[in-house]
Amino acid sequence: MPEVKIEEAKRFMVEALRAAGAPLKEAEAHAELLLHADVVGHYSHGMNRLELYLNDMKSAVCDPNASQVILKETAATAWVDGCRALGATVGNFCMNLAIKKAKECGVGMVAVKNCNHFGMAGYWALKAEKEGLIGMSFTNSSPAMVPTRAKKSALGTNPIAFAAPASEGDSLVVDMATTTAAMGKIEMQIRKGEPIPEGWALGADGKTTKDPQEAFNTGRLMPLGGFESTSGYKGYALSAMVEVLCSGLSGSNAAHDVPAWTHTQTKAPNLGQCFMAIDPSCFAPGFSDRLGNCLDHWREMEPMDPASPVLAPGDKEKINGSETDERGTIVYPQQQIDSYRIVADRMGITPMEIINN
Amino acid sequence: MPEVKIEEAKRFMVEALRAAGAPLKEAEAHAELLLHADVVGHYSHGMNRLELYLNDMKSAVCDPNASQVILKETAATAWVDGCRALGATVGNFCMNLAIKKAKECGVGMVAVKNCNHFGMAGYWALKAEKEGLIGMSFTNSSPAMVPTRAKKSALGTNPIAFAAPASEGDSLVVDMATTTAAMGKIEMQIRKGEPIPEGWALGADGKTTKDPQEAFNTGRLMPLGGFESTSGYKGYALSAMVEVLCSGLSGSNAAHDVPAWTHTQTKAPNLGQCFMAIDPSCFAPGFSDRLGNCLDHWREMEPMDPASPVLAPGDKEKINGSETDERGTIVYPQQQIDSYRIVADRMGITPMEIINN
Repeated sequence: MPEVKIEEAKRFMVEALRAAGAPLKEAEAHAELLLHADVVGHYSHGMNRLELYLNDMKSAVCDPNASQVILKETAATAWVDGCRALGATVGNFCMNLAIKKAKECGVGMVAVKNCNHFGMAGYWALKAEKEGLIGMSFTNSSPAMVPTRAKKSALGTNPIAFAAPASEGDSLVVDMATTTAAMGKIEMQIRKGEPIPEGWALGADGKTTKDPQEAFNTGRLMPLGGFESTSGYKGYALSAMVEVLCSGLSGSNAAHDVPAWTHTQTKAPNLGQCFMAIDPSCFAPGFSDRLGNCLDHWREMEPMDPASPVLAPGDKEKINGSETDERGTIVYPQQQIDSYRIVADRMGITPMEIINN
Repeated sequence: MPEVKIEEAKRFMVEALRAAGAPLKEAEAHAELLLHADVVGHYSHGMNRLELYLNDMKSAVCDPNASQVILKETAATAWVDGCRALGATVGNFCMNLAIKKAKECGVGMVAVKNCNHFGMAGYWALKAEKEGLIGMSFTNSSPAMVPTRAKKSALGTNPIAFAAPASEGDSLVVDMATTTAAMGKIEMQIRKGEPIPEGWALGADGKTTKDPQEAFNTGRLMPLGGFESTSGYKGYALSAMVEVLCSGLSGSNAAHDVPAWTHTQTKAPNLGQCFMAIDPSCFAPGFSDRLGNCLDHWREMEPMDPASPVLAPGDKEKINGSETDERGTIVYPQQQIDSYRIVADRMGITPMEIINN
């Protein structure tokens, strides 16, 4: 598969976003967000989605020049209008605000309406973690999860992200859709031509399906836990919790009113998002050491299979990130490279330079 | 099975806790906590555990007369020493503090060390909900969950509880162990003589078991999601998140250092707990109506099986609670009644009065 230098991938995304109307600062911020996903191996949320963001700007669903407005504020909280700016613009505004409040009074919590998609949820939690804080971020999204016992979807994949700093630069990072699998994983099984495990998705008949194409077409993902007998209602409950923190607090669309994200989007999704930062220094001293000890304890456990060591949450992405940084390149599917060559021509920017091995 | 009047069950628990050394106020508070679990049908966390609490007081693991100490404080946060008091004593102290802070500055977050078991996590989240706030509560617990890929347990069932007020007295209540099933559910299958589903627990050989007795003996519950292929690492990640909020912030024992809760306990568990309250009025107006609309939307969805309507998170407990209140009695297993008759004799209190149908 073709490889692209990390810096070249970023250059291309920044130019494309600029050509679509984003100011330089916001184009760079949004490119960083998408690049992070590719670097840590979550390709579905990386450059793969650039075209959707470009379309959103073209159709004025997204206003890349909009400034955010604080509608209500206390020492620890803020209610914000995202004003349909780019995901990274709103994410940076809100997480910076949450971080400032956490540094002032221990906790900062910001809920925001009128949002577009903010990429990988974990990116925002990590922004607080880099400041020595615990970070959390949540977003709702269009219906993709079937509540336990229901026939159709109502909630989004509504992710939970949580990041906390440990000693010696280590960290715990949780970044998970509250469905068993994210839609990106189902697309990957389609490309590989392999079935999906039972408990990932329902087919058109409302029963569990192993056919990834059928799962993709129906868009009925099962909540984390799967069936009712294996506690799928807990994943549904977590998704509902995220809904409360996002649309509940911010006054955005509820997930069941959010339009699906397509290449022909004309209606703003008005997503709700929520950002939190917590300062561990307001609690017991030694936080990062205690967390470091936990991470080590888990990693040092005897594995079932010696070839598959026990990981701490977030280790997979760290390993992917190190490998990408060492290689200096990102490997993209040929199909993605081809389609972005067409985008480049259409927008009058230089296509991505491919490295031939 | 024998029935006991709700008030009589409470009378018995208060007297037993008093006889073991708890002041009246704390005995009543703790009895309320256990009674709530029985009323809503979570019998494992109700009177079933009374004897463990009585033993903890007898062996001085629990000091029912201890006052809590605020060790560090900001407008939105507090770090508290629970001083080994009863679970309800510490829970009330900390959640009242979180509620006070939320009313003052939008969010209140309290982390506490030196805790004993605080019963059903949801009870504490509901305490904030009754004040018109969002409530959250977390606790760590002794090792019972096997991290993905590991052979043995390291984390607790580390529950997440979340409650939010909706219009017309309605509410969303999430109260879930981050394991697929709580240990109480496995005990229930033993009593029923029925197998457990795959994905609940590992046997002595480290493979999934359907034998509830083996699952109980090994104490190796699988994280929510089950196997790695069905995203069990997400349940593990959620449990790790709870660990950070509990032992990480409070400086208590980490789950892997917490002794199992037994009838011969001599070492204080030094659990960590975390309580949060959030004031929705600091964000977009109309919170409770929006949540009410979501709850209705989910409940009104077409079910797969018309005999099993779609529920909102927390509905099962509300239905159980209404049925209990209407009946006016709680139904306990004969075994539990018998063992508490022995306890009553030993402590010199009046045994529970049983209603003969």
